[in-house]
Amino acid sequence: MNYLDLYKQIKFKKSFLCVGLDSDIEKIPDFLLNEEDPVYSFNKAIVDATSKYTIAYKPNIAFYESRGLEGWKSLEKTVNYIRENYPDIFVIADAKRGDIGNTSKMYAKAFFETLNFDAITVAPYMGEDSVVPFTKNDEKWVILLALTSNKGAFDFQFFNDGKENLYEKVLTKSQDWGSKENMMYVVGATKAEMLGNIRKIVPDHFLLVPGVGAQGGSLEEVAKYGMNSHCGLIVNSSRGIIFADKTEKFAQRAGEEAEKLQLKMKELLLAIL
Amino acid sequence: MNYLDLYKQIKFKKSFLCVGLDSDIEKIPDFLLNEEDPVYSFNKAIVDATSKYTIAYKPNIAFYESRGLEGWKSLEKTVNYIRENYPDIFVIADAKRGDIGNTSKMYAKAFFETLNFDAITVAPYMGEDSVVPFTKNDEKWVILLALTSNKGAFDFQFFNDGKENLYEKVLTKSQDWGSKENMMYVVGATKAEMLGNIRKIVPDHFLLVPGVGAQGGSLEEVAKYGMNSHCGLIVNSSRGIIFADKTEKFAQRAGEEAEKLQLKMKELLLAIL
Repeated sequence: MNYLDLYKQIKFKKSFLCVGLDSDIEKIPDFLLNEEDPVYSFNKAIVDATSKYTIAYKPNIAFYESRGLEGWKSLEKTVNYIRENYPDIFVIADAKRGDIGNTSKMYAKAFFETLNFDAITVAPYMGEDSVVPFTKNDEKWVILLALTSNKGAFDFQFFNDGKENLYEKVLTKSQDWGSKENMMYVVGATKAEMLGNIRKIVPDHFLLVPGVGAQGGSLEEVAKYGMNSHCGLIVNSSRGIIFADKTEKFAQRAGEEAEKLQLKMKELLLAIL
Repeated sequence: MNYLDLYKQIKFKKSFLCVGLDSDIEKIPDFLLNEEDPVYSFNKAIVDATSKYTIAYKPNIAFYESRGLEGWKSLEKTVNYIRENYPDIFVIADAKRGDIGNTSKMYAKAFFETLNFDAITVAPYMGEDSVVPFTKNDEKWVILLALTSNKGAFDFQFFNDGKENLYEKVLTKSQDWGSKENMMYVVGATKAEMLGNIRKIVPDHFLLVPGVGAQGGSLEEVAKYGMNSHCGLIVNSSRGIIFADKTEKFAQRAGEEAEKLQLKMKELLLAIL
């Protein structure tokens, strides 16, 4: 999927919502545990109930990998299900990978070829050759960690050389490695006030914004400081949507929570659409 | 495995060699492709031929993940094979993971419980809560990236706040998150001359040193600057050993290459044993 396709989806659905599929088998409704593949059944129901309101899904790979072969099967089936039934929706592997060049190339193969993801999140610590292999597939995206939403973000991301913080250095330096057509950045919603400054460095790039909802970030603040003329935002919510309810109504309730966010987003998009 | 067990292995085998199982299916001998699980057959033969000379194996997860379910199966079987046949050998998942706390916890589960690894490599960018979940299992280890062996290491790892470089900040800051009993650091052999300085910050910790051989690092330099009274080094070689030959003699040749390195290590260990 390319930049304009993504923007078209946002205009069409009046949404910039991403639903995070952090589908922990210990948190899904109990009655699903009788299914052959409980996590896949859960994801399928969540996707069907939320697809009207969302432009992206983001499976969190750790929750699949922790279950070994079974988890990998659930992941593969989930990605294929979204692809076949909702081909216009952007699918992100939240994988935080990154290694020396020849190894990153194998991770790109894993997520862009073996699995048919549109994008993968990548950690920048190892620099250029660890990131560039993810920019080599047409219409596939690397989403580089810049400023994350967790407490540990303060340990290194604000390390400062007298001119800029490390996360700003990541933003400036990585401009040479890709473009707004194949690179996005992770910027946590819990630090929304910093989005204004970030927009000065990367005015046109899409930002993937986790941390709205369970982690405490405000959607209004994110839009205020982070939105650009093509929206430029993909805001993720995971637990607040997918675990809104644990009864047989879990999917319906997930749909309702997704719709609530989408309605707020519709309002916020009035500024640019 | 704990600190002293590892040291005992080093003394017993007179080796601090780790063999990297970067078992690319496109690079293993052609005749193995007729096997049911070519990568597993390859690994099994390599392990049997090199186990006398090595104290650790390090599957590079990308090479398995890139093959999806099949790759995950090869990985699982490889780890189990080493565990069952060579229980004293340290097994490292070269995975470069790291995410917010609840997600890192799932990665720890993936590699320490679902798969029975002793250690996992982790990227430090997201800070404390992304690293600490890997220190919570008894006798399991987190191996934090400090100074990597690739070209991209210069992009951010030498970012300097006037007092120290980022990689030094990672070393100092992470002292609060674990101990020499559950934490090691990745320090590339291509930057061996920096090991002296690194030893001032982390005198007692084990260092995992990639980049000897194919990437150009020198074993003698690494030992000169990096060895401590408990050796404190695990030096990895991948391609130079496992792809030394592509004929039916590939395993024998791998064993010979491993032995060559072990003999050099035996000499270098004379300084402390």
